[in-house]
Amino acid sequence: MNKAVLAYSGGLDTSYSLVRLAKETDMEIHTVIINSGGFYDKELKQIEKRAYELGSNHHVTIDITEKFYKSCLRYLIYGNILKNNTYPLSVSAERIFQSLAIAEYAKKINAKYIIHGSTGAGNDQIRFDVAFEVITPKSKIITPIRDENISRQEELEYLQKNGINMNWEKAKYSINKGIWGTSIGGVETLSSDQDLPEESFPTPLSETTPSIIELEFSKGEPTGLNGEKMSPVALIKKLNDMGGKYAIGRDIHVGDTILGIKGRVGFEAPAPMIIIKAHHLLEKHTLSRWQLLHKDSLANWYGTLLHEAQYLDPVMRDIEAFLTSSQKRVTGKVKIQLYPYYFRMIGIKSPYDMMQSKVATYGEENEAWDSRDARGFIKIFGNQLKIHHSFNDLE
Amino acid sequence: MNKAVLAYSGGLDTSYSLVRLAKETDMEIHTVIINSGGFYDKELKQIEKRAYELGSNHHVTIDITEKFYKSCLRYLIYGNILKNNTYPLSVSAERIFQSLAIAEYAKKINAKYIIHGSTGAGNDQIRFDVAFEVITPKSKIITPIRDENISRQEELEYLQKNGINMNWEKAKYSINKGIWGTSIGGVETLSSDQDLPEESFPTPLSETTPSIIELEFSKGEPTGLNGEKMSPVALIKKLNDMGGKYAIGRDIHVGDTILGIKGRVGFEAPAPMIIIKAHHLLEKHTLSRWQLLHKDSLANWYGTLLHEAQYLDPVMRDIEAFLTSSQKRVTGKVKIQLYPYYFRMIGIKSPYDMMQSKVATYGEENEAWDSRDARGFIKIFGNQLKIHHSFNDLE
Amino acid sequence: MNKAVLAYSGGLDTSYSLVRLAKETDMEIHTVIINSGGFYDKELKQIEKRAYELGSNHHVTIDITEKFYKSCLRYLIYGNILKNNTYPLSVSAERIFQSLAIAEYAKKINAKYIIHGSTGAGNDQIRFDVAFEVITPKSKIITPIRDENISRQEELEYLQKNGINMNWEKAKYSINKGIWGTSIGGVETLSSDQDLPEESFPTPLSETTPSIIELEFSKGEPTGLNGEKMSPVALIKKLNDMGGKYAIGRDIHVGDTILGIKGRVGFEAPAPMIIIKAHHLLEKHTLSRWQLLHKDSLANWYGTLLHEAQYLDPVMRDIEAFLTSSQKRVTGKVKIQLYPYYFRMIGIKSPYDMMQSKVATYGEENEAWDSRDARGFIKIFGNQLKIHHSFNDLE
Amino acid sequence: MNKAVLAYSGGLDTSYSLVRLAKETDMEIHTVIINSGGFYDKELKQIEKRAYELGSNHHVTIDITEKFYKSCLRYLIYGNILKNNTYPLSVSAERIFQSLAIAEYAKKINAKYIIHGSTGAGNDQIRFDVAFEVITPKSKIITPIRDENISRQEELEYLQKNGINMNWEKAKYSINKGIWGTSIGGVETLSSDQDLPEESFPTPLSETTPSIIELEFSKGEPTGLNGEKMSPVALIKKLNDMGGKYAIGRDIHVGDTILGIKGRVGFEAPAPMIIIKAHHLLEKHTLSRWQLLHKDSLANWYGTLLHEAQYLDPVMRDIEAFLTSSQKRVTGKVKIQLYPYYFRMIGIKSPYDMMQSKVATYGEENEAWDSRDARGFIKIFGNQLKIHHSFNDLE
Repeated sequence: MNKAVLAYSGGLDTSYSLVRLAKETDMEIHTVIINSGGFYDKELKQIEKRAYELGSNHHVTIDITEKFYKSCLRYLIYGNILKNNTYPLSVSAERIFQSLAIAEYAKKINAKYIIHGSTGAGNDQIRFDVAFEVITPKSKIITPIRDENISRQEELEYLQKNGINMNWEKAKYSINKGIWGTSIGGVETLSSDQDLPEESFPTPLSETTPSIIELEFSKGEPTGLNGEKMSPVALIKKLNDMGGKYAIGRDIHVGDTILGIKGRVGFEAPAPMIIIKAHHLLEKHTLSRWQLLHKDSLANWYGTLLHEAQYLDPVMRDIEAFLTSSQKRVTGKVKIQLYPYYFRMIGIKSPYDMMQSKVATYGEENEAWDSRDARGFIKIFGNQLKIHHSFNDLE
Repeated sequence: MNKAVLAYSGGLDTSYSLVRLAKETDMEIHTVIINSGGFYDKELKQIEKRAYELGSNHHVTIDITEKFYKSCLRYLIYGNILKNNTYPLSVSAERIFQSLAIAEYAKKINAKYIIHGSTGAGNDQIRFDVAFEVITPKSKIITPIRDENISRQEELEYLQKNGINMNWEKAKYSINKGIWGTSIGGVETLSSDQDLPEESFPTPLSETTPSIIELEFSKGEPTGLNGEKMSPVALIKKLNDMGGKYAIGRDIHVGDTILGIKGRVGFEAPAPMIIIKAHHLLEKHTLSRWQLLHKDSLANWYGTLLHEAQYLDPVMRDIEAFLTSSQKRVTGKVKIQLYPYYFRMIGIKSPYDMMQSKVATYGEENEAWDSRDARGFIKIFGNQLKIHHSFNDLE
Repeated sequence: MNKAVLAYSGGLDTSYSLVRLAKETDMEIHTVIINSGGFYDKELKQIEKRAYELGSNHHVTIDITEKFYKSCLRYLIYGNILKNNTYPLSVSAERIFQSLAIAEYAKKINAKYIIHGSTGAGNDQIRFDVAFEVITPKSKIITPIRDENISRQEELEYLQKNGINMNWEKAKYSINKGIWGTSIGGVETLSSDQDLPEESFPTPLSETTPSIIELEFSKGEPTGLNGEKMSPVALIKKLNDMGGKYAIGRDIHVGDTILGIKGRVGFEAPAPMIIIKAHHLLEKHTLSRWQLLHKDSLANWYGTLLHEAQYLDPVMRDIEAFLTSSQKRVTGKVKIQLYPYYFRMIGIKSPYDMMQSKVATYGEENEAWDSRDARGFIKIFGNQLKIHHSFNDLE
Repeated sequence: MNKAVLAYSGGLDTSYSLVRLAKETDMEIHTVIINSGGFYDKELKQIEKRAYELGSNHHVTIDITEKFYKSCLRYLIYGNILKNNTYPLSVSAERIFQSLAIAEYAKKINAKYIIHGSTGAGNDQIRFDVAFEVITPKSKIITPIRDENISRQEELEYLQKNGINMNWEKAKYSINKGIWGTSIGGVETLSSDQDLPEESFPTPLSETTPSIIELEFSKGEPTGLNGEKMSPVALIKKLNDMGGKYAIGRDIHVGDTILGIKGRVGFEAPAPMIIIKAHHLLEKHTLSRWQLLHKDSLANWYGTLLHEAQYLDPVMRDIEAFLTSSQKRVTGKVKIQLYPYYFRMIGIKSPYDMMQSKVATYGEENEAWDSRDARGFIKIFGNQLKIHHSFNDLE
């Protein structure tokens, strides 16, 4: 029999695809949903129930949250990665790992077909197709929505004609909830000049009294919150809750899609924004000047290539090796003040704080050098500039 | 006679140097103060008065604000330059241009000596010495504070002994006011974990009602504010006033000095922070993906080299040429919402907004390509990954 | 009437396309051949003759050699650009400019169709299509060879059936001759381990007595050879002749195509290899350390993006601005020794030679600094390393 | 008693230092010579003998060749590192490791003094001082030659006065022999335009019949020569012999010293040049396009920082991690043709040769994509260029 794996989300597009393929083909359809930290158990149960109602032969929920953290989010933290200095790559990163997990499942069950519900307009189709073609090249990719170029109305009609009368309410905004941030698309984000209204953000402001939190890092990984040790995944979830109450980490990202056009998307990502800023501050105290300079540019590339569906390129492993090496001393505590809508770094403590070295301290008299040394240093430091400017340009 | 140029600021260190050299040498002392946008006329008058009282033979005030903008601030905007993603290089940039202007004055009057009041502990001595050695290599550099390693108390005693009984109140914080930001050093900034208190920031919060402003850019330069055209320098000053009332643009920078040690300094820089974020947003809409990628890394180097007293290296001219070329289409308007202590981008309008092109638009059906094209694109796009992963690693 | 522009080379593929479209459509076919420095007049005459015989309605020869130099080769010299440190981008660069010139001609005559003879397997189709879509987006692209997936034998049969009995001898190697190098493909280059035999290189060794030449550069451009001033284009042609006699500049390039697969191609490029090495040597004497460091990495990107059909991206203009700025002092003379199969740099003379400055000279006692200065320099230079290593890693 | 470690080379400068300190102080002098692969046993014996004759209390020879390879040369190969695309960093790299080994010995015996014979003019003093200050900060650095600014003649006279009548013949060229290359300084290298004569190179041409060799690499390391497996160190030595007979790997390097001035030095480095070119060719076949692009620029920095005495900066460990990760598949064999004075790559064989993948092959019809896919690819590939050029610039 012809096994088919469908990346199923419970939404209209993948539901339409499921019904259509179940009705019109003899495929044995395995619906698969990947939880990378954005779903509650209750939601996953409902999605499973719906999958079977719509014709799935076999439904699987795969939790990859820990793996997602270990293989990806960790490096986004090490690299302080914000695409275009704004966006923590919330959806970009997650979709890659969902695609890989589905591809691996398809490979495991030896699926002849592998199906996703993306359109032909955006990045997601690329993330899916590339993962599928690399991991399970023998599976044929089927994409009903992309190929039929079908409208929402036509999908609804097809479903009704086939006796499915579920309520597919059209949300005003398209929301994608994940552990590394929730994206918000639609209405204003289609323009370049309109702001997203307060109510478009799923997590409303609910806490207005400022408070101070303390994040602890061990070799670059977030491992403690307010004195309590916890796993990075647990910490991110908890910090998303805490920061979300302050409506922290909201912004609008404008970026280039892999298809060459520009897009705009709102997001709320309290934990990613707080963790990255805190981590970066700790690095400023513990890394060398050369590390800071080179990390930045490599990490930027890591984010760009991840966004552009190049996670499987071996250069990503090489950059991860660099980043991991750079974190040996990124250990310590960071205090952060939370306010409604924004936050502020207070300071750090670290056993490797190079600002508090006994060798020499900023702005103070010290024994590391005297004024005569300083004169010598500057004289030689300026040598090349002096040589360069000793020539008169001929014209 | 022996002409000497003294970089005079009106503070204790340069006053001590002035008195001492006036009393104990036969130099003809020219005190020079450079205004790069941080002084009011009244302050400059007082400084001039004091200079003559303390023994200056000739006092000059040189305004370089326009030049500072044209030769430096402009490129900091083009490059969205924030050192370590935090600091607009307020003092670093200014000190370079003050040093250059003093060196040029010394060269013009053919000064035998050139004097500054820096200690041997920090970056400023390097900025001064390097500028002096390159621009006016025949002038001998004299640095009483650095060479004598003298204490504040000893300076005061020397002045009193010489009949100078001015009031040199010791400020709790050392403040350096400039057009591109005011730095705040001392007390808490000497630690790694203490926050600067509200009262350490010279500009208090005085406006709590949010408001929206509109910045206009022409080829990367800020040329209009709330519909009114003005020169970039006038605009920066006005925006510093507006943003300062909201206490916007405050932060603490942690960075590497040229001497290899780490330092921490607070700052308030409302206009720089708002302009850079707005300019960057406009770029995200108008520059190509490749421009955004390459600008970032070059601009980072520009900031680092400027900070490290390498402004006179010819590579800086090369980077400026790159940055200028990149700004051809960075023209348009940016709306920004100001709140107490923070601000937020609303959106942009630009005749070159690549997001609003007729060729293709994000997330929409379009005529630029169809689903068959997308399939072909992804197939070939994934070629190298497929090839790479088609090999089994031997171990 | 339906105007069509055909990029005509005189070879089998474009001849087949010409006959087929002339016979089977009512297009008014304008055959266009672009000379970017690789053709002799005699060859161009023959190609014109053949074009008319095969059915061209209008044949045009456009010489873009000067433009090609000014808009492209110049920057390859400024940047010392060798792809993967080997290949001067001979064909890659040329094809881009041929495509652009054809696109501009099509736009000028308002052509409805624009035709090229590339297959679907290589880079050239991308260079053509991209240029056409950007410059003349309303012209429809027609590619008989790519679309019909036709074999050489089928082409020959079609031509014979249509009364064309020209002699299309199949060369053992596919040769592409250009001013910036001649590429050699086929037989051994399809393997990874076979060498190209001596006879596969079009220009045989004909001079075995070593000789010394002198190249002169003005602001980075080659402007004189053996004491005689000449235009860069004339110089490149002459140097190709001179170096070709020594069989200099032969190598095999292995690189990534835009399509993600790797390819291998032989080439002979005497003038490019000599000019680039000589230019680079002159730069080592006249540029600052920072210029050399940053130029390299930007120039590498310029080569990569040019190779990958991104010449029209605005970042290319930005990099050109950087490179142009960097050449202000790359003026002087370089002596080179030519031998059969290789060459060697002897030395340079330049008014901007930073090695011969009066400020300080390598390896000699000098007045720029003394041993006390050197001690001070090193002490401070080593500060950060000392601080870093003063901490004991906790585990 | 006061232990002192003297970095002893057997030359005039360190001999003078040894005699002077032995005669005029009560130090217990430990002379140390580090062999990093450049000395024969016989030479080391002679140096030991001389050391004792001149007053050494204790002489030690430390062989660090294996360590030097493992900690440094290996990465220079992984990164294909040639400073300014010319110089394999022969002396720069070696001196760093000699300095570190001496510093560690001084630390081990708890030496109060640590002595080297460098002048105040060059790079070596920086490499020594930095290593000493970081590794054994409590040892006081003593540098008689630098501090006394003594001439060769004065040194000779001092030695004679103290009864030392050894023959210190003044070589015309200053030669520094090492496993990674021999440097040649003096006479012509002090000019910018003179060539080094044939006889200045220590290894004369002695083989004129061309021959083919085969190098084998395992994960980037050279592990086999002409079918025989051997350790990288043994291979480098053997290849230096083989290549040296052909006078391969000679060139003149022009570069920036850490002191800001430019210098010129000849070298012969047969094994480094052959290994690096062969390794690079193997990488072109086995690494992804992104790996090749990013490796280059990071490796360049590695070479620059190594040259500039920054080996102990932690960023070097990070780059090493990147480079090591990148070598996973750099395994295979490379054939090279040796000729008098030059060599040429023939080709490679590798189990990971991406050019010989079954997925798709260059220039051939293949099943990976068809012409329709290619059209789709190019259409979308060109999107951003089309969008960019769809705007008319306003002025």
